[in-house]
Amino acid sequence: MSERAAGLDRDDPLARFRGEFVFEEGGPLYVDGNSLGRLPLRARKRIGALMDEWSTELVRGWHRWIDLPTAVGDLLGRDVLGARPGETLVCDSVTVNLYKLAGAALATRPGRRVVATDRTNFPTDRYVLAGLDAELRLFDPDPVAGPSAEDVAAACASGDVALVALSHVAYRSGALADLRAITAAAHDAGALVLWDLSHSAGAVEVGLAERDVDLAVGCTYKYLCAGPGAPAFLYVRRELQDELRSPIQGWFGQRDQFAMERDYEPAEGIGRFLAGTPPILGLAAVEVGAELVGEAGITAVAEKARALTSFGVERFDARLAPLGLELGTPRDAERRGAHLAFRHGEDAWRICRALIERAEVVPDFRGPDTIRFGFPPLATSFADVEQSVDRLAEIVESGVHLDLDPRPARVT
Amino acid sequence: MSERAAGLDRDDPLARFRGEFVFEEGGPLYVDGNSLGRLPLRARKRIGALMDEWSTELVRGWHRWIDLPTAVGDLLGRDVLGARPGETLVCDSVTVNLYKLAGAALATRPGRRVVATDRTNFPTDRYVLAGLDAELRLFDPDPVAGPSAEDVAAACASGDVALVALSHVAYRSGALADLRAITAAAHDAGALVLWDLSHSAGAVEVGLAERDVDLAVGCTYKYLCAGPGAPAFLYVRRELQDELRSPIQGWFGQRDQFAMERDYEPAEGIGRFLAGTPPILGLAAVEVGAELVGEAGITAVAEKARALTSFGVERFDARLAPLGLELGTPRDAERRGAHLAFRHGEDAWRICRALIERAEVVPDFRGPDTIRFGFPPLATSFADVEQSVDRLAEIVESGVHLDLDPRPARVT
Repeated sequence: MSERAAGLDRDDPLARFRGEFVFEEGGPLYVDGNSLGRLPLRARKRIGALMDEWSTELVRGWHRWIDLPTAVGDLLGRDVLGARPGETLVCDSVTVNLYKLAGAALATRPGRRVVATDRTNFPTDRYVLAGLDAELRLFDPDPVAGPSAEDVAAACASGDVALVALSHVAYRSGALADLRAITAAAHDAGALVLWDLSHSAGAVEVGLAERDVDLAVGCTYKYLCAGPGAPAFLYVRRELQDELRSPIQGWFGQRDQFAMERDYEPAEGIGRFLAGTPPILGLAAVEVGAELVGEAGITAVAEKARALTSFGVERFDARLAPLGLELGTPRDAERRGAHLAFRHGEDAWRICRALIERAEVVPDFRGPDTIRFGFPPLATSFADVEQSVDRLAEIVESGVHLDLDPRPARVT
Repeated sequence: MSERAAGLDRDDPLARFRGEFVFEEGGPLYVDGNSLGRLPLRARKRIGALMDEWSTELVRGWHRWIDLPTAVGDLLGRDVLGARPGETLVCDSVTVNLYKLAGAALATRPGRRVVATDRTNFPTDRYVLAGLDAELRLFDPDPVAGPSAEDVAAACASGDVALVALSHVAYRSGALADLRAITAAAHDAGALVLWDLSHSAGAVEVGLAERDVDLAVGCTYKYLCAGPGAPAFLYVRRELQDELRSPIQGWFGQRDQFAMERDYEPAEGIGRFLAGTPPILGLAAVEVGAELVGEAGITAVAEKARALTSFGVERFDARLAPLGLELGTPRDAERRGAHLAFRHGEDAWRICRALIERAEVVPDFRGPDTIRFGFPPLATSFADVEQSVDRLAEIVESGVHLDLDPRPARVT
C-alpha cells in the first residue's frame, strides 16, 4: 500500500465503520457494494432477534411490526433522505413503488398524458413507465454528465408532460443529477417529478424536503446494505399525499384496516401507499442500514464517498488512462455518486471476468463497455480503492483477459 | 386430556412434524396459525445459511438466487398446489400479485368490463378489484357455506364478466368453495377465474392444473409458516401465459434482463409475472414451508386438517353449543379448510381478549361476532384442539370476559 493511501485511511473519521460489516477471511476485494452491499453484523443479530420474536410473540408480534414500514421509513427519511416525518415508507420493490407513485401522479394531471425520462435511465424505470397508460417521451442526455435541467425543460416544452421520472445517480456513469434545478424545471413546466434514489441513498446528500421533491423511490440493498431483495422505500411530499391515490388498493393502505366490512378508503397520510403485508425480516435489515448511515452522518458519508471516488480518479489517471481506458464518470466530485465507470472498448466484459477469476476483485460489468467500481463509504478503505485499480491495471497490462472467451451474446 | 384426544394423537401419522417447529417453553396454546404460522426450526437455519451466503458470495450469490422465485414456485406448485412445472412463482405480496393477474386477465377480454366477486371475500381482494379499470359486481353468498357455482353462474349471466375472483377457503367462515364446479361455471360464461388460496395452501388439496384453474395467488405466512410478510405466490395456467402481460413491467420480468439497452419485452413463460428484485431471505423460508408440506404429503396434511376440525366440531357440540355459541363453519369436513369460526353475538371480541389475557390461548377475532380457531395440521395436536375449546368454554362459563371493556369503535 502506498503512503498516500495509508495516510488517507489513517485520517478517515469513518474508518471504524468497517468493523460493522462481515469481511470473510481471505475474501475478494469487493467493489460491487453498489449492486449488493455487505452484510452488517448488526443485521445478522437483528434478523435473528426478529425470528425469536416471531417464535415467541407469534401473531401478537404484529402489535410492533405493523408500525415498521412507517417507523423505518421515518428513520430512513430523517437520516438518509432529508425527508420530514410521515413522508417515507419502506415496502415492496422499487419497481412496484415506482408503478404506484407514477400511476398516482398521472391521475392528478388528467389533461396530460406524457411521462418524460432519459434514455439512459435504469431499465426497470423505463419499463414501468412504458407500461403506464401514457406516452413515454425519452430524451438523450450527455452520456457522462447525465440529464440536465435544460434537457428536462426541453422535454417539457410542449406543456403536455405530467411526470418527469429520473435517477438521481445514473446506474452506469455514476453521474449525480442536479436534483434541485431539475425539480424546479419540471415544476416550472407544471409537471410532477419522481426521483429514483437507488444509487444515491446512503452515498450522497439527497435533501428531499428542502429541495421540493414531489416523489421518490429507491432500493435498500446497495449502500444501505439490507440484503438481496430487501424491501424498497418510497417518499411522497406531505402536501401531495391527500391528492394522490395508489392504483394498487391493498388492505395495508386502508383507512381502518381491521374493520373489514367496509369499502376501500385510503388511509390518511403516507400509509395509503402501502399495499399488502410488509416483509418484516427485510424491514429489520433496512432499519440497521438506516441506523449505520445515521450514526456516521450522511454529510460525513457523502464526503467520504467524494474522497474515495476522487482518490479513484487519481489512481485512474496514474494507472488506467495510460492503458487506454476512459473515465465514464464526471471528474467533478460534486457531480457524481459513490461509483466510478471505467470504459474499455470491446474488452470490458473479459477484463471483468479476469478480475473475478484471476485477481480476486469483484466489480461489475454494464454493457457494452463499462466496468463499474463501487466504493460504499462505510465499508471501503482508500487502500481498497488503490488495490482494486492496481489489479485492474495489472490485468490489462498482462493481457490475461485475452485468454478468456468473448462476451456471450446473451449475458445473464 | 381425554382418552379420546390422547388416542387421536397416538394414531396421528403426522405427529412427528410438531418437532419441526419452535415451541416456547410455557408459551400459550396457539390457535392462530391461520394468521401467522409458527417458526420452523429449519427456517431459522436456512435464513442463517442465506445470510452466510450473502456475506461470502456477495453479489455472486445471485447466480443461485436468481432462480429462487421459479424454483421455490415449482416446489410449491408440485407439492402444495397441484400445479405443473413453470406455472408458479414466489414473489411480491398477495395484493400486488392479485393486481398483476387481475389486470392481465382484464386485458384479454376487452369487450367485458366486469369483475365478479362475493361480498364476503377478503378485504384486500375486494379493494384491489375495486381499484381496477372495471365494474366490480359483488354478490352475496351463503354466509356459512360460501360462494357456490350457482352464485357464480347468476353473477355471470349477462355475459359481461371478464374475471371471477374468489377465495378458495373463506377467511371468516372457513368454508371451502367448490373449486372445480365454480371454475367450470365461470368458464361456461366465458370468464377467467382467479382463486385466492391464502387460507387453503398447506391446509387442503388444491389441484390447480387438474381442475383447469386459470389464475391463482396466495400467501405463505399462514399454513406455509414462512414468517411475517414472507413473499406470496402466483400461478398462471401454462396455456394462458403467452396471452397475459403484467401491468407492472419490471426488469425481472424482462426477456433478457441484463441486456439493458432494450425496450420492454416480457419473458417467455411464468417469469414474465415477476416485477422487481425478489426478496431472497423470505424465499428461503417459503422453500422450507413447501418442503415440510411435501414431506408430510398434501393428502395426509388435508386429511389431518379434516380430522382436527371434525374433532373441534365434536368438542364445540359438547362444550360450546350449550353455552349459546354458534358454529360459523360448514359441518361437512369436505366443505371446510383448517379453521373453525365460533360465533357469539356481542361478546366475541371480549371473549377473545379474555382468552389471550386470562387463559393463555391465542385465537383471533373477526368482526362483528367471530372467534377463529385455526388448526395448522403440521403443528397442532388433538390435545390442543380439546384444550383450546375447553378453555374457551371455561371463559364463557365464568363470565370473566364481562369484566373487560367492550370492543373499541376502531379495532387495530
